[in-house]
Amino acid sequence: MGDSIESSQVESISPYGPARSTIQGEPLTDEELKKYNDWFKASLYLSLGMIYLRQNPLLKEPLSKEHLKARLLGHFGSCPGQIFTYMHFNRLIKKYDLDAIFISGPGHGAPAVLSQAYLEGTYSEVYPECSEDEEGLQKFFKQFSFPGGIGSHATPETPGSIHEGGELGYSLSHAFGAVFDNPNLIALTMVGDGEAETGPLATSWHSTKFLNPITDGAVLPVLHLNGYKINNPTILARISHKELESLFIGYGYQPYFVEGDDIETMHQAMAATLEHAVLEIRRFQQQARESGKAFRPRWPVIILRTPKGWTGPRKVDDKYLEGYWRSHQVPITDVHENEEHLQLLEQWMRSYEPDRLFPDGKLLPELRDLAPTGVRRMSANPVANGGLLRKPLKMPDFRKYALKVDRPAGTNGFSMANMARFLRDIMTMNQDNFRLFGPDETESNKLASVYEAGKKVWLGEYFEEDENGGNLATEGRVMEMLSEHTCEGWLEGYLLTGRHGLLNSYEPFIHVIDSMVNQHCKWLEKSLEVPWRAKISSLNILLTAVVWRQDHNGFTHQDPGFLDVVANKSPEVVRIYLPPDGNCLLSCMDHCLRSSNYVNVIVADKQEHLQFLSMDDAIVHCTKGIGIWPQFSTDQGGEPDVVMASCGDISTQESLAAVDLLLSHFPDLKIRFINVVDLFKLIPYTDHPHGLTDEEWVSLFTADKPIIFNFHSYPWLVYRLASKRPGANQNLHVRGYREKGNIDTPLELAIRNGTDRFSLAIEAIDHVPRLKNRGAAARDALKSAQIKARNEAFENGVDPPLLKNWVWPHTGLWKRRSESPVEMTDVIG
Amino acid sequence: MGDSIESSQVESISPYGPARSTIQGEPLTDEELKKYNDWFKASLYLSLGMIYLRQNPLLKEPLSKEHLKARLLGHFGSCPGQIFTYMHFNRLIKKYDLDAIFISGPGHGAPAVLSQAYLEGTYSEVYPECSEDEEGLQKFFKQFSFPGGIGSHATPETPGSIHEGGELGYSLSHAFGAVFDNPNLIALTMVGDGEAETGPLATSWHSTKFLNPITDGAVLPVLHLNGYKINNPTILARISHKELESLFIGYGYQPYFVEGDDIETMHQAMAATLEHAVLEIRRFQQQARESGKAFRPRWPVIILRTPKGWTGPRKVDDKYLEGYWRSHQVPITDVHENEEHLQLLEQWMRSYEPDRLFPDGKLLPELRDLAPTGVRRMSANPVANGGLLRKPLKMPDFRKYALKVDRPAGTNGFSMANMARFLRDIMTMNQDNFRLFGPDETESNKLASVYEAGKKVWLGEYFEEDENGGNLATEGRVMEMLSEHTCEGWLEGYLLTGRHGLLNSYEPFIHVIDSMVNQHCKWLEKSLEVPWRAKISSLNILLTAVVWRQDHNGFTHQDPGFLDVVANKSPEVVRIYLPPDGNCLLSCMDHCLRSSNYVNVIVADKQEHLQFLSMDDAIVHCTKGIGIWPQFSTDQGGEPDVVMASCGDISTQESLAAVDLLLSHFPDLKIRFINVVDLFKLIPYTDHPHGLTDEEWVSLFTADKPIIFNFHSYPWLVYRLASKRPGANQNLHVRGYREKGNIDTPLELAIRNGTDRFSLAIEAIDHVPRLKNRGAAARDALKSAQIKARNEAFENGVDPPLLKNWVWPHTGLWKRRSESPVEMTDVIG
Repeated sequence: MGDSIESSQVESISPYGPARSTIQGEPLTDEELKKYNDWFKASLYLSLGMIYLRQNPLLKEPLSKEHLKARLLGHFGSCPGQIFTYMHFNRLIKKYDLDAIFISGPGHGAPAVLSQAYLEGTYSEVYPECSEDEEGLQKFFKQFSFPGGIGSHATPETPGSIHEGGELGYSLSHAFGAVFDNPNLIALTMVGDGEAETGPLATSWHSTKFLNPITDGAVLPVLHLNGYKINNPTILARISHKELESLFIGYGYQPYFVEGDDIETMHQAMAATLEHAVLEIRRFQQQARESGKAFRPRWPVIILRTPKGWTGPRKVDDKYLEGYWRSHQVPITDVHENEEHLQLLEQWMRSYEPDRLFPDGKLLPELRDLAPTGVRRMSANPVANGGLLRKPLKMPDFRKYALKVDRPAGTNGFSMANMARFLRDIMTMNQDNFRLFGPDETESNKLASVYEAGKKVWLGEYFEEDENGGNLATEGRVMEMLSEHTCEGWLEGYLLTGRHGLLNSYEPFIHVIDSMVNQHCKWLEKSLEVPWRAKISSLNILLTAVVWRQDHNGFTHQDPGFLDVVANKSPEVVRIYLPPDGNCLLSCMDHCLRSSNYVNVIVADKQEHLQFLSMDDAIVHCTKGIGIWPQFSTDQGGEPDVVMASCGDISTQESLAAVDLLLSHFPDLKIRFINVVDLFKLIPYTDHPHGLTDEEWVSLFTADKPIIFNFHSYPWLVYRLASKRPGANQNLHVRGYREKGNIDTPLELAIRNGTDRFSLAIEAIDHVPRLKNRGAAARDALKSAQIKARNEAFENGVDPPLLKNWVWPHTGLWKRRSESPVEMTDVIG
Repeated sequence: MGDSIESSQVESISPYGPARSTIQGEPLTDEELKKYNDWFKASLYLSLGMIYLRQNPLLKEPLSKEHLKARLLGHFGSCPGQIFTYMHFNRLIKKYDLDAIFISGPGHGAPAVLSQAYLEGTYSEVYPECSEDEEGLQKFFKQFSFPGGIGSHATPETPGSIHEGGELGYSLSHAFGAVFDNPNLIALTMVGDGEAETGPLATSWHSTKFLNPITDGAVLPVLHLNGYKINNPTILARISHKELESLFIGYGYQPYFVEGDDIETMHQAMAATLEHAVLEIRRFQQQARESGKAFRPRWPVIILRTPKGWTGPRKVDDKYLEGYWRSHQVPITDVHENEEHLQLLEQWMRSYEPDRLFPDGKLLPELRDLAPTGVRRMSANPVANGGLLRKPLKMPDFRKYALKVDRPAGTNGFSMANMARFLRDIMTMNQDNFRLFGPDETESNKLASVYEAGKKVWLGEYFEEDENGGNLATEGRVMEMLSEHTCEGWLEGYLLTGRHGLLNSYEPFIHVIDSMVNQHCKWLEKSLEVPWRAKISSLNILLTAVVWRQDHNGFTHQDPGFLDVVANKSPEVVRIYLPPDGNCLLSCMDHCLRSSNYVNVIVADKQEHLQFLSMDDAIVHCTKGIGIWPQFSTDQGGEPDVVMASCGDISTQESLAAVDLLLSHFPDLKIRFINVVDLFKLIPYTDHPHGLTDEEWVSLFTADKPIIFNFHSYPWLVYRLASKRPGANQNLHVRGYREKGNIDTPLELAIRNGTDRFSLAIEAIDHVPRLKNRGAAARDALKSAQIKARNEAFENGVDPPLLKNWVWPHTGLWKRRSESPVEMTDVIG
């Protein structure tokens, strides 16, 4: 092959001219060159066909307006470069028997990948109506960007896709996620130069610092300097060669340039460059695997600079088209009205020789031979339909990790740290199938036990002090980079290729990835409609460092609103759990890790907590998702005066303390205590599969009694979910976070937001009719106690131990006792 | 001064040892060196004091546990490096009379900036109780990270801060926003190496491609290689020098390294390097300004590598502290329990010589002289209290841009393109005080008229075709980079320093910056409690490319849920408007641009639309925020059978079409039509200043009639806002987006989600008691018409022109007529 690296002295930043490339070489014979160019033409023809044609798919007749779609939609600009990359990689898949997938990063590149899937035969296999003949081709064209059809991104309907790319920025993190623990896989990843401007993409280049060349596969990024976005030049296409090259060396890559528009020399340059990159990858992997020593090589990146809309007309009338932003979407838009432009389009399409390349409506067999076969086709690689490869997680019995709860609310415990032991053992049992992801918060989130089973992957330099509690290793199970975007992208890529995982994050900063989670929900939802897509593991998100314990971080760290974002997504795919204590947390986590095709969100505090339920009770409670807690109720199954309800662990603690206060003032009060674990229990069953019927709602909450509901998040979410419930309009009184925060102790923060025990008790008094005339004294006493506690906190900087000398009974009806005090010492932590 | 650039041959990446720096030089005399080191010590002492002490602030007595805060909170790790940078820049502010602000990027660096504000005297000026004496110092210490006190970030309470940094990633984009149109300002910006891993930060380095050296100021970034995050090493501190240097050359900067821990040589190196950087900045600016030719220089960046927790003990017991992640937060945590550690802390604190440096409880006067005075102090620069400098926007009369509406719903118009003319003229009138921001969507969003007043700023390379419709210039008013994060960060920085602006974005992808908007809301909310902070211009967000018109982009582009995120924020600072037509859009935009201290969100379609209100009517309607539209109502002010309500322009169009359908079947039906512009009208007035009273609600919506509410966004938001309204529980039926999407025509998408005219009419029929026995035939007819329209769309790829031959009357009561047809031709666009 005779390739050689020359230092990049290429100074022009124009996409035009004969190929200029770092790697020299002409690996293609003349005959191959011709064939590859024919494949290129066939693909480009299909791309235009998808955008324009509803009839006459092979231009057997002269093109007329009647053959056009009434409304023209779709994007051409990035297709030529993507096709060019895909097809030349096929040669190497065949030559080296590579296991590879293609990730299409640039926006709206679907015609590029759809055309490849069609030419490789995969498309017709999964969608037989789009057969490899004129009729099938016509259907293939018509459905594109057409009502009821498929989109202009690599949507779930696209064979071979794990990355839709509707919202830009995640191609690389998805690619790295896909190759973790897939040592033979190469993810050939097109990165658009528009996409490259996004923050998530810009930082995801650093993923190589977390890639082990022995146990992981490789990502081969191809940065496509297509030159333009929708209406603007791209930054990376308009900086000097020196800056561009430096940038990628700085990111830790060896950049290989392929630049120009001259077809023949570009084919050779791309073929040679891709082959060099593949051989470099194999060399690095071999070196690491044979020596058993993982290291961070200077991985190859290809920088492909071609004109946007390459091979289209450079100008239409006086306006630049090819090599300009005008080729971004439908390249010639007025073909319905402008006869001359219609002819220009026909001439352009015929320049791709559909008659010669699809003689019987089907691609010439000798061209088809250019593609790999079976699962080696990137459009048919089962890795991109990860559910097919998914093995259930091996899991220990979560009951083994139970916190001992002899007496409800009788003991304190660290729910999170305890659950971490469960995660640790899952990690041990699934050393190539499960990873924990998080932005540098795993230890802070009290999950450090997992490091016993899998250290933090780190391929950066090591210092002496790393031995002193660093928990770093070149091989591990925990992925920590201070980029929620990258962690989430990695996890999504890991799941989409058939594995299991969990993201842990501070609650407020999960909003950083609202949009990514939205997009993943949409992917899951749409995948349900695609019969050949197998279900993948759920995306599990564990939120802690919760709003109510942000005493030192203050206002910026107080936002429990991620639940509102998730609750807007399709009920088919979203689940939200707020376990009230440690055993419920275990039960929920077990459930979520076994599930598939959901986005599961679990919210739990990481600090010390009162424990309420034994493991057996917790399982029953979590399985129901909502329930009356008779051990904290005094209505003895009869009619209550008031329903005290809670959702969230800290909220539950305060609600129960309110029950205690109420009973200390009104020992005869009939209280029903309800706890909600599964938030979607609140919504009507017609709106979510977990929802209660109205009958069930009434049997729990009653239709006419006041409900004092203490909620972890913004109160309005409960109002929204329960808005149609009988009596909710009048009886439901929800307390939650209302953006009233500061540097506060937990109690002070609760008081500011009205979610503390005193406020809850007062609210109950205000709504129970029979306390109307009896309540004033109690109200005053509660108010005084609240002020006293508040002042004490202000004075000392910590909350007074409010539950001192209070005892919760073992079981049965509520009874206030005074022996065996339980101290709530510094649960603030 | 004798500094000289040496190519960075520094190969060690250890933070220890004598200074290694790109710039050589010893600008400080021995006496200066001593003084600066004394300042450094004084600052470090204050930093520790804030974390530990509630009494004995100057250690006049031996340190005992009683002097400590009961709960230790706060972060020390990044403080030394930040102080070091701040204080050495002070020398240059004085020497060159610089106008500068300091932006603290690293997480939890508040003690660094608070100590500087205190030492410069600013703190005592704005908070007289924290006076410059022992008593004031004690208060200054106690309030830090203490209930009711101030946080461990540079919160709004911090003089000189425009950047809190609770959530990481935005320091640089804020800094660039601050210096746009501030030609003499330098924003000295510390970027944490943890923060540098975030996506938003990683891409914001490219901001120099949008910085004009003539009309804008300069950002001097100091990347602080502090080495560690909470529990992990940082990526940039663990890559080779070559990679690090390349990365910043690639980003377009000239990196200057300052590395080491040896105090004396580090002082000299930092002083020399900062001075070199300042002179470079001035040289570039001078060159551009004198030649009148803007160019993109290789701006300086300083890479400061010092140990985390620098000057603290390297080890405590056997554990690394300084130069390790353990110094991140409270460096020695167990001083309450461990007498030995308490002594170590005392020894450490005394090593900073508080007795000598604060002889009478006040900093030695000769040290105070190191700081600039008055507004030259970075802690007192009015730029960082932008409201002080804010000039009202000069605005033309928005009524001049009115769309002519002689007959309600009688004409079509492009609301957005029309409003763009208003923006264009605002731009013309405020050429250094207003900018439009957006991620490459301004033209797509039909706002291109603005380019007549201000082109897109572009300091990258230019190509020949840019003249052919590129609208690029080195000086301009429109900021477009494909990073919502960077655009939002720029805008925030621009507003926080006293100017005006607007962000435009596709509706679905605004979720990308959910968390940034959350944080900005919190900044605004908290600022209201800080008496010396003047109000800044509102953050205005214009959302278009709305969910209902995503026919070609499909499911990934359908998410109207940003409103839910915003609605959770404090009612003091959030406003949401959904103008139903072009004149209302003008009125809302005018209102928002005049306002201050809000986050205003305006949602409007960019495609052609029916126009409903004349300008006079629009002003009245928008001023009320909600109202009955008598011209589309048939209840003649009496009791309606049904209330048809809408919020959102497309939703309004469909609702009105439903009214038309209903009346065609039931000419005697009493319909009341209500439109909502100001979403917060729906919430009780007790929860938001815009909210209606229940009496007002009932006078509009009635307490007992069915309300068919067509909403732009997810229906649950309306349920939530109106959950407590009389009768809402039973009568309110909200339609909106329910995550049911695909590649659909607008009508098909509406039908899938139940928000189309047919579904709305059917729902109305189902809920009006007196139609119970009369409704079946109409229901069937509507269903058939729906199916017919749907099939037509599927066949042709476009919606049938459903409003053909329909006419809306000029005024007064509804009457169906057949003359002068209005065609809804391709409003799909």
